[in-house]
Amino acid sequence: MATQFDPPSGTRDFLAADVEKRERAFGVIRSVFTRYGFEALQTPAFERLDVLLGKYGEDGDKLVFKILRRGEHEASGEADLALRYDHTVPLARVAAAYGSRLPSPYKRYVLGPVWRAERPGKDRYREFVQCDLDTLGSASPLADAEALCAHHDAVAELGIGEFRVELNSRRVLAGLLTAFGVPAELGAGVLITLDKLDKLRPEAVAAELGERGLAPDKAGELTAAMTAPDSADRIRAALKQSDEGSAGLDEVDQVLSLVGPQLPPGRIAFTPRLVRGLSYYTGPIWELTAPGVAGSMGGGGRYDHLIEQLGGPDVPATGTSLGIERILALLPDAEAQPGRLDVAVTVMGEEFARTSFGLAAAARGAGLRSSVYLGSSGKLGRQLRWASDQGARWCLIYGGAEDEAGTVTVRDMRSGEQAAVPPGDLGGYLARAAESK
Amino acid sequence: MATQFDPPSGTRDFLAADVEKRERAFGVIRSVFTRYGFEALQTPAFERLDVLLGKYGEDGDKLVFKILRRGEHEASGEADLALRYDHTVPLARVAAAYGSRLPSPYKRYVLGPVWRAERPGKDRYREFVQCDLDTLGSASPLADAEALCAHHDAVAELGIGEFRVELNSRRVLAGLLTAFGVPAELGAGVLITLDKLDKLRPEAVAAELGERGLAPDKAGELTAAMTAPDSADRIRAALKQSDEGSAGLDEVDQVLSLVGPQLPPGRIAFTPRLVRGLSYYTGPIWELTAPGVAGSMGGGGRYDHLIEQLGGPDVPATGTSLGIERILALLPDAEAQPGRLDVAVTVMGEEFARTSFGLAAAARGAGLRSSVYLGSSGKLGRQLRWASDQGARWCLIYGGAEDEAGTVTVRDMRSGEQAAVPPGDLGGYLARAAESK
Repeated sequence: MATQFDPPSGTRDFLAADVEKRERAFGVIRSVFTRYGFEALQTPAFERLDVLLGKYGEDGDKLVFKILRRGEHEASGEADLALRYDHTVPLARVAAAYGSRLPSPYKRYVLGPVWRAERPGKDRYREFVQCDLDTLGSASPLADAEALCAHHDAVAELGIGEFRVELNSRRVLAGLLTAFGVPAELGAGVLITLDKLDKLRPEAVAAELGERGLAPDKAGELTAAMTAPDSADRIRAALKQSDEGSAGLDEVDQVLSLVGPQLPPGRIAFTPRLVRGLSYYTGPIWELTAPGVAGSMGGGGRYDHLIEQLGGPDVPATGTSLGIERILALLPDAEAQPGRLDVAVTVMGEEFARTSFGLAAAARGAGLRSSVYLGSSGKLGRQLRWASDQGARWCLIYGGAEDEAGTVTVRDMRSGEQAAVPPGDLGGYLARAAESK
Repeated sequence: MATQFDPPSGTRDFLAADVEKRERAFGVIRSVFTRYGFEALQTPAFERLDVLLGKYGEDGDKLVFKILRRGEHEASGEADLALRYDHTVPLARVAAAYGSRLPSPYKRYVLGPVWRAERPGKDRYREFVQCDLDTLGSASPLADAEALCAHHDAVAELGIGEFRVELNSRRVLAGLLTAFGVPAELGAGVLITLDKLDKLRPEAVAAELGERGLAPDKAGELTAAMTAPDSADRIRAALKQSDEGSAGLDEVDQVLSLVGPQLPPGRIAFTPRLVRGLSYYTGPIWELTAPGVAGSMGGGGRYDHLIEQLGGPDVPATGTSLGIERILALLPDAEAQPGRLDVAVTVMGEEFARTSFGLAAAARGAGLRSSVYLGSSGKLGRQLRWASDQGARWCLIYGGAEDEAGTVTVRDMRSGEQAAVPPGDLGGYLARAAESK
């Protein structure tokens, strides 16, 4: 049940284990993207309202979190800023602002939260990280192939073993509609229905095509061609009937030829039913899917006129967006109780506090995570329990007996063995122990 | 001049070199804080409005960025959410939400942006990263000493060579007011003026104390005691006249005794004039200052009742906040043109694109940053210039001659030397070259 102390609806608090899991994944992604020569860009959490509005369609505009004007203008109830809804509009603004001072082509990646006022649900949040990679200023299929490969490698290095890359082209879709005689006005709807062929039986899809107004024979012919055992050949033959279809097929084959040799056998396939909802794509499109992931692990494609429409310069562009929240849901959680400390240091009375504080500093000097006991109990048993709760590998004890002997007791928390070490040797002792553990 | 493409007032776009500089600094801070056994916490960018309002005083409330309600409620002009203004209120909420499921004491750090609608100025932003470390649930001076030391170590490891730690206690301030007979109703104002002793001459401070209503003899006595060559002794003697003053002195001496041996000589000093504006502090307070930094590089102190006042449980608490934006301003910028690539791969015609794409993949397989040329020029000179612009260490060339010879030309971009390497050996060749470079 939601309480007054929960974070706002659709958002999450991340405690240590979650942060660790997420940051580790982000680190992998950054490292892969950097290896492909993409560079980082960070833009503010909010943009001026006029920069965002009108860019995501009417439905999108409603999902933008708007920020009230401040001071004397607050009472107006008007907004002048809004939280970023994606990373593409800010990219277009940056491209416009920096122009030729950016490298050309400009290959940038971004990992950061975006905010959308959607109804929260399973794996659907109002604050979620979007992880994008885009190349502005290259019309080459090599740029498409690079974006796709970088996305693929990131997912693979994150440890997702079983997944597929579906590849298609906007032009293939246009060619398909031509080849099967779909009236222009039905095109968009027909594509949306065809995209369901991965979930619905062919007859159900054909029926839905009929409901959309497509003649039954055409609907049947189209679904049959898309699902027949020799579907690939039939679709290829159909596409070759039109210029647009042939061009689309060429795009797909070029990307396949570049990318194929770099991926495990069978990982990527020409997938004529793939639509990817967003209407701005102009060339190759792709999606990464995995068993157990509703929807996809992200995807992308070429979108040659969008940056200009969004207020940026007129440059060819291609990119991919990694569905990191869905991928994170597939990864194993960090250990339930990750060790917080390597070395826990007891405080056996106020008179020894200063020495204990120094012992912890010596352990940190040896590169280990270390802290003194901050509680109020003077009992060794209680403090050893604390050391164990912290997942500490060693516990340092310094009390009356140690003070007299001039040594520190180093307790191995696994074996229970104890050693008496002169304080001056402690750093070296722990460093050696950590190396051999 | 501001253009329509600039980010909103008081916010910044960070291009690659800035992101790199910032992330490197954040990495150092995380690593130091982790070594002290602090764990990460991340909370959402926004909180429910009622969680934030009334927590920062009337002036603070005006600086909160409020988010308009959505959907049918948008027209009301009302806000229901607000961007976080600091990390302390979200910490109090998390402490309330998780209660005993958090470790005790709960030692957490956070690095993340906060938003304040202040008038933007030099080094003053509306979106800036705040970097906090807090311990909830320990009344021990060891917790104060740990927070202070961790802050110190982070600043030192960031490479700030010259800085000072000023240490005081709220109780010392109370004891001072008692010792010098400052009427209770003038106390707060007198402290604010005393804090200016680091900038103003003693006479100017005494005059301002007089304007605040303090009798001239008392004002003179107080400023003289604070600035005399034997000031420390005189202040100590004065403080011992009251219980509160003595207790404050004990607090300061405890922290000094714990922390002193861990810091370079002369780094930390008892600084009776230090006030730190925030009224919620209850014990030791500290601030880190450096030449050339207006204000401070952050500071902190003990604030034993604040978490409860902010809606959390009643726990003792202490913490420190690192002024990272000011510290970043002190650090050298990354190189003007950081190398984007280790290995740049030319594309000498469409027929060799696939091979070139594979060569870049082989270089990445050897752990190097690599990309193919994405432009439209087929000229080697143009592509070599691109390789040089990318800061590449090597350039791979594969054209007609190489295709015939069955080798790749590996050009050392520094020496201009070229080697012919069989494609199958390329990964190993580059890995060895990178190791010996």
